[in-house]
Amino acid sequence: MTNPDSKDQGTIDLAEYIFRRLIQLGVGTIHGVPGDYNLTALDYIKPLGLTWAGNGNELNSGYAADGYGRIKGIAAVITAFGVGELSAINAIGGAFAEKSPVVHLVGTPPLPAQKAKACMHHTLGNGDYRAFPEMTKYVTVAQADLTDAETAPALVDAALKACILNSRPAYIQLPTNLVKAQVPPPTVPIDLSHPGYDEGYEDKVLEMLVEKMQGSKKPVILMDGLTARFHINEEINEFVRLTGFPTLSSPFGKGIVNENLPNYCGGYEGIVGDESTKQQIDDSDLILNFGPLHSDVNAMGFSAIPKPDVTVTFEGYSVRFGPEEADPQSRALLIKSFMTKLIKRLKTTELPTIQPFTRGPSFSPTVLKDLEPAADGDAIKQDEFWLRMSEYLKPGDLLVTEAGTPFAGGNTLILPENTILLNSCLWFSIGFTLPALQGAALAQREQRQEGNKEGARTSGRAILFIGDGSLQMSVQAIGDIIRNRLDATIVVINNDGYTVERVLHGFKKSYNEIQPWRNTLAPSFFGAPENDPEYPVITAQARNWGELRNVWGRKDVQAGKGLAVIEVFMHYADAPRLLKKLAAYVTERNKANEA
Amino acid sequence: MTNPDSKDQGTIDLAEYIFRRLIQLGVGTIHGVPGDYNLTALDYIKPLGLTWAGNGNELNSGYAADGYGRIKGIAAVITAFGVGELSAINAIGGAFAEKSPVVHLVGTPPLPAQKAKACMHHTLGNGDYRAFPEMTKYVTVAQADLTDAETAPALVDAALKACILNSRPAYIQLPTNLVKAQVPPPTVPIDLSHPGYDEGYEDKVLEMLVEKMQGSKKPVILMDGLTARFHINEEINEFVRLTGFPTLSSPFGKGIVNENLPNYCGGYEGIVGDESTKQQIDDSDLILNFGPLHSDVNAMGFSAIPKPDVTVTFEGYSVRFGPEEADPQSRALLIKSFMTKLIKRLKTTELPTIQPFTRGPSFSPTVLKDLEPAADGDAIKQDEFWLRMSEYLKPGDLLVTEAGTPFAGGNTLILPENTILLNSCLWFSIGFTLPALQGAALAQREQRQEGNKEGARTSGRAILFIGDGSLQMSVQAIGDIIRNRLDATIVVINNDGYTVERVLHGFKKSYNEIQPWRNTLAPSFFGAPENDPEYPVITAQARNWGELRNVWGRKDVQAGKGLAVIEVFMHYADAPRLLKKLAAYVTERNKANEA
Repeated sequence: MTNPDSKDQGTIDLAEYIFRRLIQLGVGTIHGVPGDYNLTALDYIKPLGLTWAGNGNELNSGYAADGYGRIKGIAAVITAFGVGELSAINAIGGAFAEKSPVVHLVGTPPLPAQKAKACMHHTLGNGDYRAFPEMTKYVTVAQADLTDAETAPALVDAALKACILNSRPAYIQLPTNLVKAQVPPPTVPIDLSHPGYDEGYEDKVLEMLVEKMQGSKKPVILMDGLTARFHINEEINEFVRLTGFPTLSSPFGKGIVNENLPNYCGGYEGIVGDESTKQQIDDSDLILNFGPLHSDVNAMGFSAIPKPDVTVTFEGYSVRFGPEEADPQSRALLIKSFMTKLIKRLKTTELPTIQPFTRGPSFSPTVLKDLEPAADGDAIKQDEFWLRMSEYLKPGDLLVTEAGTPFAGGNTLILPENTILLNSCLWFSIGFTLPALQGAALAQREQRQEGNKEGARTSGRAILFIGDGSLQMSVQAIGDIIRNRLDATIVVINNDGYTVERVLHGFKKSYNEIQPWRNTLAPSFFGAPENDPEYPVITAQARNWGELRNVWGRKDVQAGKGLAVIEVFMHYADAPRLLKKLAAYVTERNKANEA
Repeated sequence: MTNPDSKDQGTIDLAEYIFRRLIQLGVGTIHGVPGDYNLTALDYIKPLGLTWAGNGNELNSGYAADGYGRIKGIAAVITAFGVGELSAINAIGGAFAEKSPVVHLVGTPPLPAQKAKACMHHTLGNGDYRAFPEMTKYVTVAQADLTDAETAPALVDAALKACILNSRPAYIQLPTNLVKAQVPPPTVPIDLSHPGYDEGYEDKVLEMLVEKMQGSKKPVILMDGLTARFHINEEINEFVRLTGFPTLSSPFGKGIVNENLPNYCGGYEGIVGDESTKQQIDDSDLILNFGPLHSDVNAMGFSAIPKPDVTVTFEGYSVRFGPEEADPQSRALLIKSFMTKLIKRLKTTELPTIQPFTRGPSFSPTVLKDLEPAADGDAIKQDEFWLRMSEYLKPGDLLVTEAGTPFAGGNTLILPENTILLNSCLWFSIGFTLPALQGAALAQREQRQEGNKEGARTSGRAILFIGDGSLQMSVQAIGDIIRNRLDATIVVINNDGYTVERVLHGFKKSYNEIQPWRNTLAPSFFGAPENDPEYPVITAQARNWGELRNVWGRKDVQAGKGLAVIEVFMHYADAPRLLKKLAAYVTERNKANEA
């Protein structure tokens, strides 16, 4: 696409430059909402072959971009100046906290209006055009304030590089009067090399690690969720397989390691999990901690943080031994390169015989095996629900578990191979997952269309577990799922309000109640087609085990094609074991804090 | 309510202190969403006699508080730290821009965790506990960061005073460990006096104004929307009546002046309105401009800003002559006191005979009178729709017009006495009005229950006009309306997408399309009762004038009790005259800007 007004044959419009860069980095879909000051930029999306998701509101577009970015390693969202960007800023904050590489492009008023401090719509009316970028600094790693054609391409490139290298949001302000500014086309890919990369250092660290591993008798691998940002899924699983080291996952890290591997030992839940597991971790002489996120919830009230002196911490550009913070010479390694070399090395390296690790009594396959069969008329209880749900999962499923009971219950699912599980373990913004499901499912569909390895691993099914309270926060994303004809199964756990908050405080307080919605009307309300064989729509309710088995036994439900909204009723006072124990522990700690 | 753990008989819990202060200022309902770090504070709401609105999400709770604040002069919203407050921040920005006094109370993690920079959930994970209050500084006039029992009451009082005096949002951070901190009860009301108030100055300004008015031959009153923040509705109307000066309204100011007054001359639309009106305003020798908001849209591309040299500007604490900015001695007057004195003075003051003002051809009553009758089968066109809607309005109605076509069309409604019209003319965040309707309707119901003058003026009907695109942004507010059993009529203009954006740019572009919803399913989906005579639910669709007349002819629709969702279909390319002309004018200006 070239601007018909363009005088210079060798240049392109700045807006086109930005989108071409995004395409080079792997973006196939732009999320967002149209609004004044971004409309002319939107003109470039379709002609360049990009898809416009067209979200119902900006918060949802930001959440969706986060989900998309977690799958594809890059995402883009466009909002309008002021109103649009502030509506999305909670989602950008979440992407910053949990490291999702989202590019937030904002269409801003023309520069002459900005310079004149004009009282334009979508401003605060006080002439302060810097307020929104200043606010955004706290939740983005780079801000490109485009003010002229000469500097704009370099600023765009720098912002995109920072976004990719840090796996965190970047912010680009595109004033309407620069949309058609003429810039050179992006002929060379953006340089994404890490400034501190040092191959010699990488090799040295590798030797140190191998030595540590060889000297270890009681090693353990703790898999955490930021590992997913390194895009080294294959290497990680090969490493876990080759070493045979006992491997446990945090809630955030669940799904990264193939749970069929014989040395997979379940989730690590610190003080709220099995005592025997905690004891063995505490006794370890080497803990390989991949992509840690030591938040209060993910690290179980900080009780699951491994002892620093025996821990090796694996990050995107470093492998650190013990409590050491960073390389004093600021040298970096590349985790993918490091792991590739490590695997090669391990194939010819003998590791010592290690002490066997005994799985705790909460290990899901064990619990599931011993579970009494549920009668058809039995109420559906949380712990049982999550265990039995495992039987319906397929390799390559995309699973998303919302904050609240699904986060905790989802941690006990038994995952088949190549399953991806998305959740939130730090930001915990309720309502995140429904739009994130939209973004992630769309990203996986693109991966399949691209015909690459990632695409081949997916089943095409995308299943969200979400509570009735969380669903209300961002429900219009169901419309976005339909608009984009995404295959999605939404399991709504209807338990009469915010059970996660009840467990924390105010068990029977009215503020933890919600307006009861008729959730299975959602597909109709949001405009799902009524008789489209290409996009079947299923709604179902289950109030007991018999009904639930009937629903999951349906071939169309199992196929996961089109849209399914399945409402599962549970008691408001019921919560998964992990949530109850964690809430009790945190409440105790808080009381101590407040005393 | 007293804390059972309280040792000191003479003290109360800090949380109770805050709520008691809010009650003293007129808050009857707290908007918000429960979340960790605010739960224990929520325990105080019900026992203190406050209502908990319980919104579906935080953005909506903020918008609702804005609507409530515009009616009652004070509002409060509670959200959770980080995730909750950022979700609401666009609404807080709107309240800042358009001056709605909203107190935003945020429950924050316990101070020891903050000091330790602990990686708690809802943080960014980088130990930065100042990020959110820093972001909030740009959109609030005061920030109270409560850190101990000794200083907290004064900080709370100062924040509330700033909120009231500036009619803009204030922000209060309440850490969970201070919820029960013991503080003295608020025995004396908050001192809300303006620090610069000078009665002698007020009287002097009054004399200057009277002199100006006596010397004027061609005076005019321009009523703008920030006047509503002064809560001087009666005084304003008495003033307009007494002077007989020709009076015109901006879109933001519409509804403040009784449109039945013989000297009411309609809306002033600058260069996009009637030429003869602009000519007469330009020829005026005295323009009394009340509560101006000179945004690009409200002032019609800045063309409706009155000439500074003949303008007297009325604000909450000042009356300024000509281009003079403020009193050099920082003296203030109180607009209510000023207007009361002015009216008294005018009763004994003879004003000169003034030149008659000729209403322009666009004056709505004139246009409506000449309108050809519409046949039953005729399509519903925008301009005609808004004019004819006037016939269904009743004195005391609460009307809310969303950004887009309703904003422009609503400007041509003929309003009966005591009608309140809420809209947005600067921030223009689409989706604002549905939650704002919830908040405003709730505020009016409280006013009726309080049995005061404001309450007596209301009809009990609350009618929103909103486009199908805007509706999607914040649709869960329909659930909040049902939860709070509010009487509300929601007129959804279904015109296949964002017509306001189409008019601006991308007329037929797919990015201005939306996922089509089945809007009349909304009451069912959001859980409206099915057979509750106390809360009737009506849904209806109108595709032509016959159908629309049938709908509005229904007694239950006219009564406005319960919830009605009325979907009116219009062509996507149709827009009210004002919007088309304004868009054309702004587009031309932008092109000039971009050249």
